[in-house]
Amino acid sequence: MNQQNRSGIPEQQERTDASHEPHLSHEPHASAAPREPRAPHAPHDPQAPPTPDRSAPSGRPRRPGRLYEYIDDGPAIYVDSFAIIRREARLEHLPANAERLAVRMIHGTGQVDLAEDLVVHPDLVPAARAALRDGAPILCDATMVATGVTANRLPRGNDVLCFLNDERVPALAREWGTTRTAAAVSLWEPLLDGAVVAVGNAPTALFHLLEMLADGAPRPAAIVGCPVGFVGAAESKQALTEFAERFGIDVPYVTARGRRGGSAMTSSALNALAKEEE
Amino acid sequence: MNQQNRSGIPEQQERTDASHEPHLSHEPHASAAPREPRAPHAPHDPQAPPTPDRSAPSGRPRRPGRLYEYIDDGPAIYVDSFAIIRREARLEHLPANAERLAVRMIHGTGQVDLAEDLVVHPDLVPAARAALRDGAPILCDATMVATGVTANRLPRGNDVLCFLNDERVPALAREWGTTRTAAAVSLWEPLLDGAVVAVGNAPTALFHLLEMLADGAPRPAAIVGCPVGFVGAAESKQALTEFAERFGIDVPYVTARGRRGGSAMTSSALNALAKEEE
Repeated sequence: MNQQNRSGIPEQQERTDASHEPHLSHEPHASAAPREPRAPHAPHDPQAPPTPDRSAPSGRPRRPGRLYEYIDDGPAIYVDSFAIIRREARLEHLPANAERLAVRMIHGTGQVDLAEDLVVHPDLVPAARAALRDGAPILCDATMVATGVTANRLPRGNDVLCFLNDERVPALAREWGTTRTAAAVSLWEPLLDGAVVAVGNAPTALFHLLEMLADGAPRPAAIVGCPVGFVGAAESKQALTEFAERFGIDVPYVTARGRRGGSAMTSSALNALAKEEE
Repeated sequence: MNQQNRSGIPEQQERTDASHEPHLSHEPHASAAPREPRAPHAPHDPQAPPTPDRSAPSGRPRRPGRLYEYIDDGPAIYVDSFAIIRREARLEHLPANAERLAVRMIHGTGQVDLAEDLVVHPDLVPAARAALRDGAPILCDATMVATGVTANRLPRGNDVLCFLNDERVPALAREWGTTRTAAAVSLWEPLLDGAVVAVGNAPTALFHLLEMLADGAPRPAAIVGCPVGFVGAAESKQALTEFAERFGIDVPYVTARGRRGGSAMTSSALNALAKEEE
């Protein structure tokens, strides 16, 4: 089986850099007056030679003069963001062990009222954390979700996999009369036992996963089920919340009721589950 | 310069497959009764051999029985989604040429009230379309944004680039006392003339871009400026809407006021700009 999209790429919300150095190189903020506009530039011509690099002969780019007042310290941006979320969001209905998970999902979407739509199984956070510490893979429905997982938060260098571009997928989708994303979920099956699975795009993928589980597929350790959109998303997430009662198969999950969802929300959840520290 | 993340990967919302075949292989929906639950499975053990593949000896996975009623035809999901958006969203305040852009951005986020926050320069759509038809590259602040661009919508196989993982970035960010994402934007400069640029993550990247432009950097053809979050996002997008008046440099843009933004919204915008057909 191809292992695609083993990700070493920061999540959508990762704005940090490792530097905590004082910002001695900043120009003072005083220069708020407009600069001299540059001369009009020639229209883009793809046949033309590359635009000359204006940076120093060494090839080093330079920082432009500061014109705006903004926080440009990555770790400080995180700290401030999380503080704002904790001030504004109502998280009381969630399990206490899911507070950081909820904060990070809100962070990924920019919306504190997401909290109202979140549904978190009481065992989700400990189950997912334990699985990842044991080396479980993360199986994603969409490449954007996999891309959003921050490699250095993973406790065991866990595999982060998406099979959407597996060569078998188009034929399976045609044969089964379903979406490629749903067909690709069937390729998870040999890895499903104890895995952390993440659906951040397609409602059909979440429905398909639930149908696999009801049909006897191995149980994942945890489901992040946050498909997005206008056709089937709310319904698939409703089905997830009712699955244990209906089928007697109780897999811990996190979801967001309604239309909201998506890769940023989903990879933010995965990054919260991967590492307790913010 | 490294050219990273040339993307051939479907956007977060791409659920289509090429099949329009009738869905003859569907099982009837009647089987809504719970199946027999499977025996409890052994706990996950990372040292254990891989879980046996339950699929046929040929290695072919199988579709589970249908338990839920949902639309599983990719193109039909798109058509229905766009119809719902057009029924619910208020788009009258936007330029007429930006209707499909707005619909697709809403589609990417699952929220029709995003329309109220959208601000679209009257020249944005024609300017971005012309640039991409001429072969302009797309420069992205985040790998998730680049991953979300659908390769087969690009009119000229345009480069989709993100320099966040360029080896020069960490040192530049330290030296300049800014985020890695902002520092990476300075590496756009040799490619900036006539490019389509997309900021879908970091407010610092959008501020940095505006400072470069005010400082005389080459002008891109269009800016998709949709950073997300609680610290600086709203302010950076406000600065984008006021940039032409303040600095006399009028680059067409699309943005979303407030905290909402992100990679899905941004790559949806890029996919709308890349190809007029839905």
